[in-house]
Amino acid sequence: MPVLLHLDSSADLATSRSRAITKSFADEWRSQGEEFTVTHRDLHVDPLPRLADSSLHWAKHLRVAGANPPADAEALQAEIIAELFTADVLLIGAPMYNYSLPASLKAWIDYIHVPGTTTQTDAPRQPMAGRPAVFVTSRGASYDAGSPTEGWDHAIPVLELILGTSLEMSTSVIATNLTLAGVVPELADQLHRSEGELAAAHMAARSTASQLARAFA
Amino acid sequence: MPVLLHLDSSADLATSRSRAITKSFADEWRSQGEEFTVTHRDLHVDPLPRLADSSLHWAKHLRVAGANPPADAEALQAEIIAELFTADVLLIGAPMYNYSLPASLKAWIDYIHVPGTTTQTDAPRQPMAGRPAVFVTSRGASYDAGSPTEGWDHAIPVLELILGTSLEMSTSVIATNLTLAGVVPELADQLHRSEGELAAAHMAARSTASQLARAFA
Repeated sequence: MPVLLHLDSSADLATSRSRAITKSFADEWRSQGEEFTVTHRDLHVDPLPRLADSSLHWAKHLRVAGANPPADAEALQAEIIAELFTADVLLIGAPMYNYSLPASLKAWIDYIHVPGTTTQTDAPRQPMAGRPAVFVTSRGASYDAGSPTEGWDHAIPVLELILGTSLEMSTSVIATNLTLAGVVPELADQLHRSEGELAAAHMAARSTASQLARAFA
Repeated sequence: MPVLLHLDSSADLATSRSRAITKSFADEWRSQGEEFTVTHRDLHVDPLPRLADSSLHWAKHLRVAGANPPADAEALQAEIIAELFTADVLLIGAPMYNYSLPASLKAWIDYIHVPGTTTQTDAPRQPMAGRPAVFVTSRGASYDAGSPTEGWDHAIPVLELILGTSLEMSTSVIATNLTLAGVVPELADQLHRSEGELAAAHMAARSTASQLARAFA
């Protein structure tokens, strides 16, 4: 039973691009057969509280003496990490908000990056090593290499560092830019690019989903 | 009555460096005279909910047709922005968590960056232009130029982009690295640097506070 863990974090329930594209991915995954299951967690609709205590960043055996995080917060964190560990494929809807992750998605990152649990210093490979993680990002403007806003995206690099570099997952990005081209007058002349990228992102979502599913066939 | 708006966001109420350093700053500010007031908002202890609806990113006159954010969320956002507008100096305790801002602080950023309110396209200067914003960051390891982890800090750049580039505040950073040197064995040989930077950060906080206060004398 291959499991897709599908996270959304957009604060726009009506017209969000990241939600629409992750839905294309998840629908394609489901269409591969009834054994292809999806666990959907909506981090905006059912937000996680911010990590209650900094000691929860560490597995129990690595915490400083006297650390005593609230039991309910620890239990919730254990549930979130168990959910990650059951995922064969991870899909994250990660719109860029104010050059960074939505607070709701950042909270999830703070729950799951736990030295001693999700990363282990002495292990030859990390527990999630090699499993695919697909990041679906949408950005209001554009952040092309060589442009004045190159390097302003501080959302995707954080997902790459935590889930790629630290957890050793196999990461990829489906990006769509200029989501505001239909709204902000200064971007109106880039509407064509905006629409083209959206269509291409839906195609990439479907093809990635079916390609990843094939590994479980 | 010069007002310091003092934000903390560390999830460590016992040994946090960012909390200790912002306290040094705020104590020095208060010591300048009884007219030097402090508004303290603890974003970890009293967390803001994530922004309820993406339409709240825009001032009312810039929202798309049909936007209808919850009234209580809109009222809370108005309160947070009013608090920012009353600040003569902004002080933010911003520890780096997982290469990014704490979710609790990111939520605040999402409340206060509002085109049409805190930034205005047609205005010659932004409402907060020129007011000092001091970021106190603490980082577990080090992220020096030329080292393999250069560019891994995606926390401070977001504060610079929103409060500096967009809101045109006059930003500065008080940084302390290697907070984990006393805890993580691999960093133990850098304990001296860690302690030196901590002492220097407290000094910088006090001198910056008294220097900024002098502008109001």
